[in-house]
Amino acid sequence: MNPANPSFAQEVRASFARQTFMTLLGAQLSRIEPGIVEISLPYRADLAQQNGYLHAGVVTAIADSASGYAALTLMPAGAGVLSVEFKVNLLRPARGKEFVARAEVIKAGRTLTVVRADVFGVNGDKDRELVATMQATMICLQQKVDH
Amino acid sequence: MNPANPSFAQEVRASFARQTFMTLLGAQLSRIEPGIVEISLPYRADLAQQNGYLHAGVVTAIADSASGYAALTLMPAGAGVLSVEFKVNLLRPARGKEFVARAEVIKAGRTLTVVRADVFGVNGDKDRELVATMQATMICLQQKVDH
Amino acid sequence: MNPANPSFAQEVRASFARQTFMTLLGAQLSRIEPGIVEISLPYRADLAQQNGYLHAGVVTAIADSASGYAALTLMPAGAGVLSVEFKVNLLRPARGKEFVARAEVIKAGRTLTVVRADVFGVNGDKDRELVATMQATMICLQQKVDH
Amino acid sequence: MNPANPSFAQEVRASFARQTFMTLLGAQLSRIEPGIVEISLPYRADLAQQNGYLHAGVVTAIADSASGYAALTLMPAGAGVLSVEFKVNLLRPARGKEFVARAEVIKAGRTLTVVRADVFGVNGDKDRELVATMQATMICLQQKVDH
Repeated sequence: MNPANPSFAQEVRASFARQTFMTLLGAQLSRIEPGIVEISLPYRADLAQQNGYLHAGVVTAIADSASGYAALTLMPAGAGVLSVEFKVNLLRPARGKEFVARAEVIKAGRTLTVVRADVFGVNGDKDRELVATMQATMICLQQKVDH
Repeated sequence: MNPANPSFAQEVRASFARQTFMTLLGAQLSRIEPGIVEISLPYRADLAQQNGYLHAGVVTAIADSASGYAALTLMPAGAGVLSVEFKVNLLRPARGKEFVARAEVIKAGRTLTVVRADVFGVNGDKDRELVATMQATMICLQQKVDH
Repeated sequence: MNPANPSFAQEVRASFARQTFMTLLGAQLSRIEPGIVEISLPYRADLAQQNGYLHAGVVTAIADSASGYAALTLMPAGAGVLSVEFKVNLLRPARGKEFVARAEVIKAGRTLTVVRADVFGVNGDKDRELVATMQATMICLQQKVDH
Repeated sequence: MNPANPSFAQEVRASFARQTFMTLLGAQLSRIEPGIVEISLPYRADLAQQNGYLHAGVVTAIADSASGYAALTLMPAGAGVLSVEFKVNLLRPARGKEFVARAEVIKAGRTLTVVRADVFGVNGDKDRELVATMQATMICLQQKVDH
């Protein structure tokens, strides 16, 4: 997919840096390409649900941010992005030393962009397990709109 | 709805207390009734997305925990609950001094329970705005199962 | 909710009449109010899944059409409506002599409208059971757009 | 993926043949492999929404049936399958002489199986466009259960 905005990577990094919640989680941008963004997150004991697995809200947070930024890579310069909706299937207990959310645009439109994100629990180079998958709709904001 | 477990409120409180992520967010259980659970969360600057609104991952986290515990109130004593899937529509920018996630069981089954959760941004007694709505499926774990 | 278009009911009826698939199913508009539309469907043996219940595709079809038209009632005159996405939870086997899909707008926006639809299996005045619930996003098309 | 049931293809065909709604639509099973099922459907003028495109309910019907049968290929002999929930993103107007729903299991569990289905509009060997994508949860029924 061809990015409309040659500065897409800088815009993604600048917007991500303003997401204070990503900082609180300890999440980092680990890949930015046209239509694809990855966010990585080391496990921490204060991010858990009742059984010690990563809380579904954290799984969703990194999948949602990765999805929004994957959509943003294909939007015009200066555009903003907001999540319209997402659906997450939690496939396995979210176990891992680290988690990676990998988002990829399925369909980029002028107004709406549909993205899929997979979240993996990672315990080493060869131990990587799909723990959740998201299907999301993002909206492009070029001016302030009441969507 | 009639709870099968007379100790449902204690079990919800005990499980919630083990969710370290709720502590990190500053979220609190504010209502526990058969089939209904509410979680409240004061806004904090470190819970934001790029525009300063509450991050969709935080909105989802409190909606998901409230949904799981709403389901748990109707499960047998000793049961565990896990999220199978959820879908969230983000209706407005998540603005507010405080947020309340209100979850209510739509259909309680032996294995699966379907829950709806609304998340409100609150700025005072008369200023309460629906910012997101979730439709979720929860699974009852009576023994350890590979669901 | 206040309709922007005084002819909303006629526009809904005219559009519904063009949905040939509603005719094939034997579905009928049974209520049109600002923000609320109902579609009714008698059970027929050729609308079944493998156990004789109403096929989830039929349940979805009437919920989706009702949702789109509920959204259309609040759109400007001459607007078109398309489904962006929907999520359906199938709560019980879809049994009934008749089915009613009741859609209600949760949030009407200039571009996007979020709608909830419940589908009931009906066996008489006092026997009405919720069989499915949908959460959907509709888009308003004022001109031809690549959404 | 290894099917637990050597007769999986016969069971899928037998169940599909009982779905009277697939017959009404003119849909056919076009591929049955472990974890993968495809259903094909020629366009017909009586399957349309208000603009003449394939109705989202029909798109969903073939995606749902393909998803259920993809799940069934990996279930034990004699099992039944029901849809728990699905979410569909409608990516483009559903145009085509023919439509193909291709479902593939993402995660097969003892009770729940998660499936993804893509629906393509087809106008010839080289003209195939993704019109919708579904993320679904299916449940395995070995005995009669109140799920």
